[in-house]
Amino acid sequence: MTFTLEIHSATTIAHPNIALIKYWGNRDDTLNLPANGSISFNLAALEARTNVTFNLDFPADQLVINQEPAGGLALARVSAMLDLVRAMAKLNVHALVESTLNFPIGTGIASSAAGFAALALAASRAAGLDLNDKKLSCLARRGSGSACRSIPGGFVEWLPGISDETSYAVSFAAPDHWDLVDVIVVLQNQPKKTGSREGHTIAFTSPLQEARVADAPRRLQACRDAIRWKDFGALAEIIELDSNMMHAVMMTSSPPLQYWEAGSIALMQAVPGWRSEGLQVAYTLDAGPNVHLICARKDAEMVREKVLEVSTPVDIIVSGIGGPARIVRSV
Amino acid sequence: MTFTLEIHSATTIAHPNIALIKYWGNRDDTLNLPANGSISFNLAALEARTNVTFNLDFPADQLVINQEPAGGLALARVSAMLDLVRAMAKLNVHALVESTLNFPIGTGIASSAAGFAALALAASRAAGLDLNDKKLSCLARRGSGSACRSIPGGFVEWLPGISDETSYAVSFAAPDHWDLVDVIVVLQNQPKKTGSREGHTIAFTSPLQEARVADAPRRLQACRDAIRWKDFGALAEIIELDSNMMHAVMMTSSPPLQYWEAGSIALMQAVPGWRSEGLQVAYTLDAGPNVHLICARKDAEMVREKVLEVSTPVDIIVSGIGGPARIVRSV
Repeated sequence: MTFTLEIHSATTIAHPNIALIKYWGNRDDTLNLPANGSISFNLAALEARTNVTFNLDFPADQLVINQEPAGGLALARVSAMLDLVRAMAKLNVHALVESTLNFPIGTGIASSAAGFAALALAASRAAGLDLNDKKLSCLARRGSGSACRSIPGGFVEWLPGISDETSYAVSFAAPDHWDLVDVIVVLQNQPKKTGSREGHTIAFTSPLQEARVADAPRRLQACRDAIRWKDFGALAEIIELDSNMMHAVMMTSSPPLQYWEAGSIALMQAVPGWRSEGLQVAYTLDAGPNVHLICARKDAEMVREKVLEVSTPVDIIVSGIGGPARIVRSV
Repeated sequence: MTFTLEIHSATTIAHPNIALIKYWGNRDDTLNLPANGSISFNLAALEARTNVTFNLDFPADQLVINQEPAGGLALARVSAMLDLVRAMAKLNVHALVESTLNFPIGTGIASSAAGFAALALAASRAAGLDLNDKKLSCLARRGSGSACRSIPGGFVEWLPGISDETSYAVSFAAPDHWDLVDVIVVLQNQPKKTGSREGHTIAFTSPLQEARVADAPRRLQACRDAIRWKDFGALAEIIELDSNMMHAVMMTSSPPLQYWEAGSIALMQAVPGWRSEGLQVAYTLDAGPNVHLICARKDAEMVREKVLEVSTPVDIIVSGIGGPARIVRSV
């Protein structure tokens, strides 16, 4: 075959996202069709910057993360996404994927979401494809389910769908609709023992997962309404419940997954008290011990001070709401 | 009426119990008919010692707990049980109830279970009644659901029943059937914010409670089998799951109840690792932050040492398996 790519290299940026209504467990583990819909926003301050270059001279796909060559499962997952792109573009060329993240990997701050959203956009563009947002979101989902939510910007809902083409995320409010920030209390920056991907596959071993999924439409509606009307009290109630429901399923699956640590509980215990003192703040935890404190921007500094009174984080990252995945360079 | 009691004073001892399969939520809040069956053993080292004296000269029921006069809700609950006894005995005399506990009250170590079991036995005996174990267990249940499990000894199952007469606890293995102890890590000896009684009434506001209840027969069977065959691995798996399932419901009810504290999580995180090092130990938590480490007696000292490595308890209480509620004096 002849190498006829017009564009063969592209660099993209995508943000991780924090789920307000969580994704946990698949209807289909191969396609990452989720058991329930979810809602999130992108984290503007955090990003994965990814360059993909297709080159006929490459003997195999190569992956470099934060300047370090990566192999094993990480490379295999990247190659699997490149295969999807190559199939769409009818291309048979290996690629070099270079990704840089400005935040810790594998600790429950959605590094794989940011990484696969950036990769889906960079790989498709470098392969000469011009996919619309829906197709990009579907493609990102194949790499890591929640990556589909990092394609659109602002407040995002992942429509669970029933097939590869019907399971994607859409924006339902712009980043500036509501001036919220995520105060991320990093309690642990070492990779977690059980990754989200493995966790999803055992979600239905919990006797509670079916009930969690059945109740999801109600929680999605409550969250959508809270965002639409900027009702912080309602938002706090539903996102804390939803976070607790996901962790309830995790800790009752087989084997059980206990992502919380002592500092996580100390913060979860404290937050409702801060709220009753007038701060607009609520907690949510992804598949890791780090605590995401969703709060009004005006309260972020006070929240940060209060965090230090009850826990000893290794870092605190404050992020506003981010835009969509985007191309920064393509040649 | 004439005061014709032959016996008008009785002193009893009853132990609190630790549930291995938990009771949380009622089918009937007035009768304390539980949503699901439960399994427990009594804690030999802990006891409530209660004296009940009926006297025509008393103008009202009086309650003294640990040498301090008690009124309010505590007295109202005691009087309600005395009313049940008076109705059975066709008696119209007030009583003085004096109770002494050798462990902290209202912190999730089942003080009300021990107290109401001791009271049911003392009050009925002082009133001249000679109730069999089944009737005593039903009576104790009216005071505090789990008190019915403190009437029989050894390993006990509360048969949930469908009516006042069919909901009671029975012993299915003697105290010496299996030499287990409960290493109680007391992290907090202040009364909890939300008592179990109030918690039971909101259990079904959790979207997960129905699933928890529906799965209970399976967990009861697994626990019974583990005890019958003294299979510690199986016991550990089912009791940790069941504890997590109860707390999952608590933390997703409306309002949410988060009984865990930082020290609770630190211990829950550590226990599976200790087990993989060969110790026979498993955790379970009642409606409070204190962690009950069920373990083989031979491992109790090592467990105590390990506890001090990961937490700073205010006390550690070690208790073997106790016998039934008993009369120590009646005149």
